[in-house]
Amino acid sequence: MKLAKKNLSQRLDRIYDAIVVGGGAGGLSAALYLARYRLSCLVIEKGKGRSFWMQNLTNYLGLSHETSGRDLLKDGQDRFLELDGDYLRGFVEAVTDEGETFAVKVKIGKENSEYVTFRTKYVVAASGIIDKLPQLEDMQNVYDYAGYNLHVCMICDGYEIGDKRCGLFVGSEAAINTAFVLNWFTPYISVITHGTCEVGAEMRAKLAEHGYPLYEQPIAKFLGHDHTMTGVRFVDGSELELETGLVAMGSHYHNGYLKEIDLKRSGENLVTDEMCRTSHPRIFALGDLKQGLNQISIAVADGTLAATGIWRDIRRSSPPRRWEENVKDSSAP
Amino acid sequence: MKLAKKNLSQRLDRIYDAIVVGGGAGGLSAALYLARYRLSCLVIEKGKGRSFWMQNLTNYLGLSHETSGRDLLKDGQDRFLELDGDYLRGFVEAVTDEGETFAVKVKIGKENSEYVTFRTKYVVAASGIIDKLPQLEDMQNVYDYAGYNLHVCMICDGYEIGDKRCGLFVGSEAAINTAFVLNWFTPYISVITHGTCEVGAEMRAKLAEHGYPLYEQPIAKFLGHDHTMTGVRFVDGSELELETGLVAMGSHYHNGYLKEIDLKRSGENLVTDEMCRTSHPRIFALGDLKQGLNQISIAVADGTLAATGIWRDIRRSSPPRRWEENVKDSSAP
Repeated sequence: MKLAKKNLSQRLDRIYDAIVVGGGAGGLSAALYLARYRLSCLVIEKGKGRSFWMQNLTNYLGLSHETSGRDLLKDGQDRFLELDGDYLRGFVEAVTDEGETFAVKVKIGKENSEYVTFRTKYVVAASGIIDKLPQLEDMQNVYDYAGYNLHVCMICDGYEIGDKRCGLFVGSEAAINTAFVLNWFTPYISVITHGTCEVGAEMRAKLAEHGYPLYEQPIAKFLGHDHTMTGVRFVDGSELELETGLVAMGSHYHNGYLKEIDLKRSGENLVTDEMCRTSHPRIFALGDLKQGLNQISIAVADGTLAATGIWRDIRRSSPPRRWEENVKDSSAP
Repeated sequence: MKLAKKNLSQRLDRIYDAIVVGGGAGGLSAALYLARYRLSCLVIEKGKGRSFWMQNLTNYLGLSHETSGRDLLKDGQDRFLELDGDYLRGFVEAVTDEGETFAVKVKIGKENSEYVTFRTKYVVAASGIIDKLPQLEDMQNVYDYAGYNLHVCMICDGYEIGDKRCGLFVGSEAAINTAFVLNWFTPYISVITHGTCEVGAEMRAKLAEHGYPLYEQPIAKFLGHDHTMTGVRFVDGSELELETGLVAMGSHYHNGYLKEIDLKRSGENLVTDEMCRTSHPRIFALGDLKQGLNQISIAVADGTLAATGIWRDIRRSSPPRRWEENVKDSSAP
């Protein structure tokens, strides 16, 4: 059921089979499988994750182009609730390993916040990442275009960028190398640092050799209308015409709640096995939090794997169910 | 475009970037990604694969319970054709490694068959498996229930089996062990060999201990109405009442066309790396043909991985695209 401040006291003496931190595509897929494995499960979603911002899910089999990330999440929530799963809007502050269980501390409500602790045998870390965007005084001007024709994922949206004049927005010199992959889709690339980093002579030479201009001034404003970005105005008043953009400024990882637990990582990504199990046997990690491609399809499959791993563990440690009635009744052959 | 006998001559001098053998969930996911990576791709589908028979896709995030496998496949085909992909109904008889390319020999049409050969740089083996079903004289009697409440996948449909009287249909003694996993969902299990195998003393004792009766006679007929199986009648005329069933008789692998190529296998499954690449660097394998869970979500993610692996290979071996016009025009900063 949907939990909120008024009804969650019913759940505080329960030990869940699994708590899923994050109700994006990976978390909801895990939750559906867990519920269908007849395991008890609570999904805790802080709201406004990466898939929430997606306007069109172009690459995920089975959905039309017009389906938004929001529609996908709504559908998953509804199905999970129909399966008697528990769903809570809240922010997971900390996960503490208590031996047989984890304590999961949650902040509920931005104002007059309430803090509660749930208990679970397994944790599924499905809280994902969020893309860093160019920082302007008026962030609404960025949100007007991000997720529309100002893209954040080349694998998802390279097709739409095809042969268009594309601004590549970077936050470090290393990220400029994205240009030399993006040029599979379009050679009309303008690199824009927004004044965030220095660019060395070697990279300048490489850009010049490819004919990709470099703009190092801060951006004053994105230009455009109706969620269609048509260029940028820099702080000196000059303008650059664009047809599309790709932001490659890195990501913020939503994994602060795991900081008490020593997990094997590769850079910021959690290292997992073929069932998405981390180096802690009762913590699984999905989708963008772990190594590999950041794609809806991958997160959804990860949810399948993690839920199946948890089911196998719990099933194997449970007593077998006999047909008691039949043992007594000798009418069977 | 949709290829058929009348228009396929246009494609016989082409070298595709990838030919996808099998237009199920994995193959169509790979095809969508390949097309969106702006690679040329032909999907060859023989028709009536495993997902074609699925009545309800209960576990795949984003689709309602009512969506059938057929709907999912139709949607994927339509989207792939919109992206200018090529799609052919035909049966792949053989794949021959010619060094830089593969020759893919296809039989088109069951009557007055035509044989044609296509060429491609990469092959994606996505032709899957099909479940073996109890063999009766009247197979229509089996098809009336298979995929409805006579299930073939415990992970997909264990939830629906929950606490029901379930027939477990096996084709070997080893498959009887499925009962000791199925009992997570229901303890009311009747094991039915349909006369296909001998059962040893140890297994008989284990079944008796759990209270699961064993029926070793051949089935004469499934009983039921409107795609709801309600039991079986055995050849001696006796009847067994059931509420649901699970067929665990193994699978037939659709991989005959790969027999000329020496690929690493584990049992019948192809061994692949984390991008679904087989031991041949230009052959990828997806979903049920490879090791791991047989789930739509996994096949769809596998399609993502294989297409991305192929794109990376082709991109890295292609010359970089420069902004030629910009090199000539010094108006850039």
